[in-house]
Amino acid sequence: MEFYLRKQYTDGPRLGEIGTPHGTVQTPTFMPVGTKGTVKGLTPEDLKSLGAEIVLANTYHLWLRPGADLIEALGGLHRFMHWDGPLLTDSGGYQVFSLAPTREISEEGVTFQSHLDGSRHSLTPEGVMHIQEALGADIIMCLDECTPYPASREYVQASMERTLRWAHRCKEAKTRQDQALFAIVQGGMSTELRRTCAERLVEMDFAGYALGGLSVGESKEEMMAVTETCLPLLPKDKPRYVMGVGTPEDLVDLVGLGADMFDCVLPTRNARNGMLFTNRGRIIIKNSQHRDEDVPIDEFCTCYTCRYYSRAYLRHLFMANEILAHRLNTIHNLWYFLELMRQMRRAIAADTYKEFRTQFYQQRQVRTGS
Amino acid sequence: MEFYLRKQYTDGPRLGEIGTPHGTVQTPTFMPVGTKGTVKGLTPEDLKSLGAEIVLANTYHLWLRPGADLIEALGGLHRFMHWDGPLLTDSGGYQVFSLAPTREISEEGVTFQSHLDGSRHSLTPEGVMHIQEALGADIIMCLDECTPYPASREYVQASMERTLRWAHRCKEAKTRQDQALFAIVQGGMSTELRRTCAERLVEMDFAGYALGGLSVGESKEEMMAVTETCLPLLPKDKPRYVMGVGTPEDLVDLVGLGADMFDCVLPTRNARNGMLFTNRGRIIIKNSQHRDEDVPIDEFCTCYTCRYYSRAYLRHLFMANEILAHRLNTIHNLWYFLELMRQMRRAIAADTYKEFRTQFYQQRQVRTGS
Repeated sequence: MEFYLRKQYTDGPRLGEIGTPHGTVQTPTFMPVGTKGTVKGLTPEDLKSLGAEIVLANTYHLWLRPGADLIEALGGLHRFMHWDGPLLTDSGGYQVFSLAPTREISEEGVTFQSHLDGSRHSLTPEGVMHIQEALGADIIMCLDECTPYPASREYVQASMERTLRWAHRCKEAKTRQDQALFAIVQGGMSTELRRTCAERLVEMDFAGYALGGLSVGESKEEMMAVTETCLPLLPKDKPRYVMGVGTPEDLVDLVGLGADMFDCVLPTRNARNGMLFTNRGRIIIKNSQHRDEDVPIDEFCTCYTCRYYSRAYLRHLFMANEILAHRLNTIHNLWYFLELMRQMRRAIAADTYKEFRTQFYQQRQVRTGS
Repeated sequence: MEFYLRKQYTDGPRLGEIGTPHGTVQTPTFMPVGTKGTVKGLTPEDLKSLGAEIVLANTYHLWLRPGADLIEALGGLHRFMHWDGPLLTDSGGYQVFSLAPTREISEEGVTFQSHLDGSRHSLTPEGVMHIQEALGADIIMCLDECTPYPASREYVQASMERTLRWAHRCKEAKTRQDQALFAIVQGGMSTELRRTCAERLVEMDFAGYALGGLSVGESKEEMMAVTETCLPLLPKDKPRYVMGVGTPEDLVDLVGLGADMFDCVLPTRNARNGMLFTNRGRIIIKNSQHRDEDVPIDEFCTCYTCRYYSRAYLRHLFMANEILAHRLNTIHNLWYFLELMRQMRRAIAADTYKEFRTQFYQQRQVRTGS
């Protein structure tokens, strides 16, 4: 993997490119989440037409079902899911902590019950490398503990130090040369522990660095404090990935701090729940006010859904529980997020990011009246 | 509407074209079912890429939700659902008899409870014309009683005669000149009553004729006896539509008897249940034998799904209850049905329909070993 930084303000927004064996990713980038080897309801051709350049898949889900060995035997995840562009797999750590009914952490790794059938499984740093090498994504992640929130200082510190040791073991266990390994900065909401973790990981020299343990219930101020602390500590010549974040506002703020990569289920999950993003605020499509509205979700949007379908039709599909509702809503929301990233990249290229951000917030205030 | 018969064997398969205000339909044709104004999971662009030339929508469902008046206010069903090709709406009669929890039939019409919320509604021949004119399909259907099966000769006769009177009232009530009204032949499994019904409807002179009350549980022999009786009685210069039918074998047999149009939920509903059509028989994708099969559903199929996805991936999507499973399976099954119609049209054009039919059945016997 190569990372080429095209432009950077001092400790501010950055424009870059990540080169992978499956193509190039313009940064800052948003990665649609394809949990089980599919971004729900969309084909890879749909994703490309939306401008998605990289997709995230979840190691935990694919490992449990259908199995990493099976996917490897079928030629790897790219071929399995018919996505020939860049792929990133997470380590499964976050899912073990958020989905498994029970789990036990030890120095060796984590033992847990599957959320599917209650069967017991173990993930170790070495095992997670083996699984992600079998899946074959372009970018893979170290096993970390997603620190609970809130947690005592003692717990957070011990957890962070174990995450450091696990990161070292991941680096040692990795064998494939065509995959880039990213480390994950933990440390809860303590800027001091975050700083320590970031510095120690940078010493170990990874291909990229992620901030984990965010969007776990903390305040926006806490999230911003952590990212403001960590991002400047990370090497300028490596991609910086803020995991599991976030809202459109979060993306704009964090790109402003120099973050390069994001993933979040927000646009896709909310689409399936009928919550649609616009610059004028969010639309709940099932609301009766949309019953006879012969206008698109967003009059300024040029996505496929907004070009051809009225809110009235989308509300009808949603109320009738039609599959096409999920698909059309997902297309719109992903377009909104990916278009937002494109706008940010253009603003950085034009040296107008500050103005862009001001306008982004003004537009929302004026239009939503909030 | 215009119907241009390009070729017909004596009382045998026919090649034709139906001209509508929204385009031309090559016959024999299969109409994908878009019950609630969407063929589940597919966009109109998907349907066009599959070669669908006409779509069926259900008056009953759309009338109850979101309402025919609303759809009319939004520019009609074509615009509402973003399908600019030919559309056919049924009369709602079949759904009243198959879906409504209770119903009462009188000379005036039928009163029933909605399957959605138990609310009471009435459909009359005049009302059904009004609703279908509001929806604005290119081809609309007379209100009929879908005769129960089995039923006494007396009931079937009385029902058939009421269907005739309702057909007359529909013709009288129709006002739009840009819609073609088809009548529906009923008469249960009595070839005598079917003959009477067909002859009386032909005297009334409709733009096309349908055979209703089939695929209601009768044997294949009964279905063939009814269609063999009725089809030759219908005018050569009008389209002949066998409603709600059927299996690939049914389509091949009925085209052989001179049927022009079909609709059936079989390809779309079975797709969502994981049952996939091939010339070698049907595949149940959830079966464990497909777990690691690195081959498409059908090695001879050129649909999007078969070009890019393995059975193993499709099984994974199905087991994981992913929306994309419905979509990819639906694309394959509809392609199978629409490709079958194309093959039949080519065979009729080449004067080789008999050979085509023989080969169609041989292929299935050889390959399935049954």
